[in-house]
Amino acid sequence: MEIYVAKTAGFCFGVKRAINLATSSTKEGGNIYTLGSIIHNPQVVKELEDIGIHAKDSIDDVDEGTLIIRSHGAKYEDFEKAKEKGLRIVDATCPFVKKAQELVSRLTEEGYHVIVVGEREHPEVKGLVSYGAEDIRVVESPEELKDMPRRRKIGIVAQTTISMEKFEAVVGFCLRKAGEIKIFNTICNATTIRQKESVELARRVDCVIVVGGRNSANTRRLAEICRSIQPRTYHIEVPEEIDPAWFEDTEALAITAGASTPHWLIEKVVSEINSLCSK
Amino acid sequence: MEIYVAKTAGFCFGVKRAINLATSSTKEGGNIYTLGSIIHNPQVVKELEDIGIHAKDSIDDVDEGTLIIRSHGAKYEDFEKAKEKGLRIVDATCPFVKKAQELVSRLTEEGYHVIVVGEREHPEVKGLVSYGAEDIRVVESPEELKDMPRRRKIGIVAQTTISMEKFEAVVGFCLRKAGEIKIFNTICNATTIRQKESVELARRVDCVIVVGGRNSANTRRLAEICRSIQPRTYHIEVPEEIDPAWFEDTEALAITAGASTPHWLIEKVVSEINSLCSK
Repeated sequence: MEIYVAKTAGFCFGVKRAINLATSSTKEGGNIYTLGSIIHNPQVVKELEDIGIHAKDSIDDVDEGTLIIRSHGAKYEDFEKAKEKGLRIVDATCPFVKKAQELVSRLTEEGYHVIVVGEREHPEVKGLVSYGAEDIRVVESPEELKDMPRRRKIGIVAQTTISMEKFEAVVGFCLRKAGEIKIFNTICNATTIRQKESVELARRVDCVIVVGGRNSANTRRLAEICRSIQPRTYHIEVPEEIDPAWFEDTEALAITAGASTPHWLIEKVVSEINSLCSK
Repeated sequence: MEIYVAKTAGFCFGVKRAINLATSSTKEGGNIYTLGSIIHNPQVVKELEDIGIHAKDSIDDVDEGTLIIRSHGAKYEDFEKAKEKGLRIVDATCPFVKKAQELVSRLTEEGYHVIVVGEREHPEVKGLVSYGAEDIRVVESPEELKDMPRRRKIGIVAQTTISMEKFEAVVGFCLRKAGEIKIFNTICNATTIRQKESVELARRVDCVIVVGGRNSANTRRLAEICRSIQPRTYHIEVPEEIDPAWFEDTEALAITAGASTPHWLIEKVVSEINSLCSK
């Protein structure tokens, strides 16, 4: 069986940077916390836990020490609270997310009614929203905007990992809802490139393994996209989940992974498959 | 046979205003010229000719007297030349077109690479383009932008009579070509409303007559749209073109007209049909 590992599988720039910042922060000593899991990957969270970096769900649970802001960013209010509490802040917000937050602020100041194309419950989106006005809206499809009255100026930004198709559909609808529209395409290139490479691989193989956290939106989306090309697509978190039966009649296998999947985990998956197939 | 005349048929606000300004200009005396036909309707142009308003193709052909800028607007250079020549300028540019010209200027000054969604050879579009930079582009479809390199900032405006579908397709493509996009939806509401009413009428009848200049882009488009609903759609300029055979087996007839069609012509069409059918 041929095994192809996607070149773009695994940690993106923002995630790599966040993990490095978190790891370095231990040098200073003291208690270290992340606000929410640093990335959506339980195995990495466990690794950090082992070196003394603890994830906390709320800023209210951290009263001293170092607070790491994860790659998804944080709410404006949480930043303010952390400053008031005198915490040492390590801002590991992905620079692309930071940019999107700034753009929400800018559009709001310039008088645009801001729309974020993204998932309302995603931590990145909750962060983005906190930089806007009261009436900022989060939608994934034009249907959700049906009740929106006509606006003079609409500003649109995207969750960095949302699909271009969803972004385009919302923009198309908004053209009918305002005379002036300012759009920042904040979709991260890394996601698009990873999805594209994975699709190309999925077309050439008869089985696809997508490695990554089940709570990782970009990994789930990657699996969805691969499945639409190759129905024999399996989303796993750890090598132990692999079922050798998947590889019966498989001549070529592709392995890809979300932006929050560490390389050591991808390598472990490859070794596990190699050892299963040599039995 | 039932006859329905579209409420929105005929002169739009901009055309009405242009004709009024032209007619009033005769009070001042002297020679009066329009730069190009004042509107795309040969019958109206003839009427104005009769009261001493003459259409000239080029600013070079006018050296004295009054120059009327038609509803489609004029090129920036032509305005400048007219001023240099000391002509009395009556600016009958449709206020919506004027606004679109200003927006092209503004986007250019703000550093956007400007794209006009429209017909390259339409006089309104030639006017719009003259307010932009050297590299301004005019396209009707995304295919025409395939060679465009990635841009930092793209600004998009529309010819006032272009279809929303074409505008949306170009905007969708541009989302992939720049991080920042500023869009002014300069499509005129009157066109959309007229098209919508005509479509609704076309659905309820078994024959449609569209009245207007064959050189009028919005009339031609109106006929196209009606024909896609009711294949028995006829585009005529004058009542004399009507063929009574069209009304055999016709129980309901709809009459609509472009933005440059005068009401007296629509009325003449209705009378002609009534008289043909009463024979």
